Amino acid sequence: MKARVHVMLKDGVLDPQGEAVRHALLGLGFGTVGGVRQGKVIELDLADGATEADVTEMCEKLLANTVIESYSIQMS
Amino acid sequence: MKARVHVMLKDGVLDPQGEAVRHALLGLGFGTVGGVRQGKVIELDLADGATEADVTEMCEKLLANTVIESYSIQMS
Repeated sequence: MKARVHVMLKDGVLDPQGEAVRHALLGLGFGTVGGVRQGKVIELDLADGATEADVTEMCEKLLANTVIESYSIQMS
Repeated sequence: MKARVHVMLKDGVLDPQGEAVRHALLGLGFGTVGGVRQGKVIELDLADGATEADVTEMCEKLLANTVIESYSIQMS
């Protein structure tokens, strides 16, 4: 069983990495770029029987800083 | 127009961040965790008219280190 977790900064939280990437892309001549947001994607190999609730708990305890980050989980 | 780019380390490339997360999850008692791979997700706001080819070029030039990383693009 696999789970894919996306962790992104919440709207309104300054994203310095995203800003840096945006400036670099504009500097390379990619004029079509507006906003850039960068986050983490974590792919977990889980033993059978693991549930989305387990992954939610992993996010709450470790994978995401829920003060400034939001997360989404895809089980497969 | 939006594009979402996933950048992950290629298979076979050591993922120290993933290993650190794995050990931490095991330490927190999440015994169901096997492998952990961590990568980047980059969300781009693009002007109308931007194409997937543009985003591919952004990945090749800046967003991914194609020697050790692979990337996938979702336009929306």
